[in-house]
Amino acid sequence: MENRQWRLHARPKGMVQAGDFEKVAVALPSPGPGEALVKTQYVSLDPAMRGWMNDAKSYIPPVGLGEVMRAIGVGTVVASNDPSLAAGDLVTGPTNVQEYAVAPAKQWQKLPAGVAPPERWLGVLGMPGMTAYFGLIDVGQAKAGETLLVSAAAGAVGAVVGQIGKALGMRVVGIAGGADKCKYIVDELGFDAAVDYKSGDVRAALKEHCPKGIDVYFDNVGGELLDMALAMLRRRARVVICGAISQYNNEGGVVSGPKNYMSLLINSARMEGFVVFHFAERYPEAVMALAGWYREGKLKAREDIVDGLDQFPDALLRLFRGENFGKLILKVA
Amino acid sequence: MENRQWRLHARPKGMVQAGDFEKVAVALPSPGPGEALVKTQYVSLDPAMRGWMNDAKSYIPPVGLGEVMRAIGVGTVVASNDPSLAAGDLVTGPTNVQEYAVAPAKQWQKLPAGVAPPERWLGVLGMPGMTAYFGLIDVGQAKAGETLLVSAAAGAVGAVVGQIGKALGMRVVGIAGGADKCKYIVDELGFDAAVDYKSGDVRAALKEHCPKGIDVYFDNVGGELLDMALAMLRRRARVVICGAISQYNNEGGVVSGPKNYMSLLINSARMEGFVVFHFAERYPEAVMALAGWYREGKLKAREDIVDGLDQFPDALLRLFRGENFGKLILKVA
Repeated sequence: MENRQWRLHARPKGMVQAGDFEKVAVALPSPGPGEALVKTQYVSLDPAMRGWMNDAKSYIPPVGLGEVMRAIGVGTVVASNDPSLAAGDLVTGPTNVQEYAVAPAKQWQKLPAGVAPPERWLGVLGMPGMTAYFGLIDVGQAKAGETLLVSAAAGAVGAVVGQIGKALGMRVVGIAGGADKCKYIVDELGFDAAVDYKSGDVRAALKEHCPKGIDVYFDNVGGELLDMALAMLRRRARVVICGAISQYNNEGGVVSGPKNYMSLLINSARMEGFVVFHFAERYPEAVMALAGWYREGKLKAREDIVDGLDQFPDALLRLFRGENFGKLILKVA
Repeated sequence: MENRQWRLHARPKGMVQAGDFEKVAVALPSPGPGEALVKTQYVSLDPAMRGWMNDAKSYIPPVGLGEVMRAIGVGTVVASNDPSLAAGDLVTGPTNVQEYAVAPAKQWQKLPAGVAPPERWLGVLGMPGMTAYFGLIDVGQAKAGETLLVSAAAGAVGAVVGQIGKALGMRVVGIAGGADKCKYIVDELGFDAAVDYKSGDVRAALKEHCPKGIDVYFDNVGGELLDMALAMLRRRARVVICGAISQYNNEGGVVSGPKNYMSLLINSARMEGFVVFHFAERYPEAVMALAGWYREGKLKAREDIVDGLDQFPDALLRLFRGENFGKLILKVA
């Protein structure tokens, strides 16, 4: 049997190209002692993948040239050499972008049956959900009655951030691209207002919908929107740096720094980054909370599923063009 | 009798010019009910004054055109219409840049006699000292054993930051301009190391003296040094934004944003600004602590005193050129 996989072929310069990846087929791997072989069902496509492709120091090592592209996925155990897992178990873990993956059993997290469809564990109940949870509650110190602004608000993380904000009793304003996404976050997800960054006077719209200013800005995009938000901070505001997707594909990796950062000084405000992996010991707490809101209907999920391993490079590019609508997932099997 | 004063004549474009101020002589003011008339002895010259000259929203309103330039000073009460103050009392407060000032008695803080020479209340025992205290301890969350980097380290605030850092048991590295200032902060103030930003390979020197990276960066300058420090943050580091003197006189008020701000994300680190006025209710705590270190010889003071009210514009310009060595003060009487 064969295992088809996507490997990193070249380090991108600026925007990712389909040619930065190479599709190969290798023999099916066998699990060693303590390991399990998993058949990939779904693979999560995330903005963070762009960072893993750069040869730069970060919170984890870059993907090496010629290595299978790193990804988190959901799959089914085919064979296990560890008593904690058995064939047929549904798990999430480092599938990477391939049909079959072997990893130590402790890297595969067993998922409960019947709670949600498998792909949901890559979205609102998975890393994006937990990123939203720790980012908003711990880093952002969100409080009822405050004004929350979130960018990429129809995206995998942003949509959960806004819904948690509503569950906590905040005024929630989302920034998204296009009328459909803006309508979705207000009508379906219950945001108080949406600002379309692709049309009209964005600054004026932000002022209209955040009349008292911003207490928490949850930033997924960086660039000009970050500067606009900084200019509207309230006293002791918190800016949560979760990502900067507008900057990831810049030529030469040069990032545009926030020119308005002195707003932190005049408002005694804070800008704080985080990596969800640093909260690993508290994942169970986050999953419990997210599953609770999900059951109560306070946390709605939307996935944008692309079918077929062959589609991987094109699907990833849709993410950086802002073309996905909902959590972008690749269906592998 | 006459009261000579410097008024704001024009809003500076880029670097402050002597012609942005106008010297006038007016009649000596009389204190109204509840007010006191103070004869100015010393006036503090601070980087923040540049911000007060811009017609922009900030933590306090700008100085109006034609108004006396705002400044904090030390002086002697000449006449008082409030029982809390009597002629002859030494006070600190809003003298502004003039020979005599009238203000409500509660805006004048009475200073104890015999603790320190009057000018010291504008330096290590005054706003710069308290700025260092709250910035390092509260905002920076400084801890023994950590590495502290401070810019403008021979300046009024930076010198106190480094000395408090040593008193708390930190490894302290200062950035200053020129061999004299670098020698001073190490030999006289007890810093562990100094980096001269005007000579040699600054990045290499920072790496040499902060081999484990930076836990707390106390920033007074902004610009390229801020970016270098961001690139060296340790996990959960704190960047304290106290000022950005390298940026205050930029054409058009455009500030260079920190390109490396995504270091906050990969290191789960924080950048936080503050204004010392927001800690007003805790000033007594800070003064007690600073006076204690001062008595014990752990907090050394150095003032750079320019003699004569006429020298005001030139003296202020020295500050922005980095030509002062120690807390810059104008002697008025």
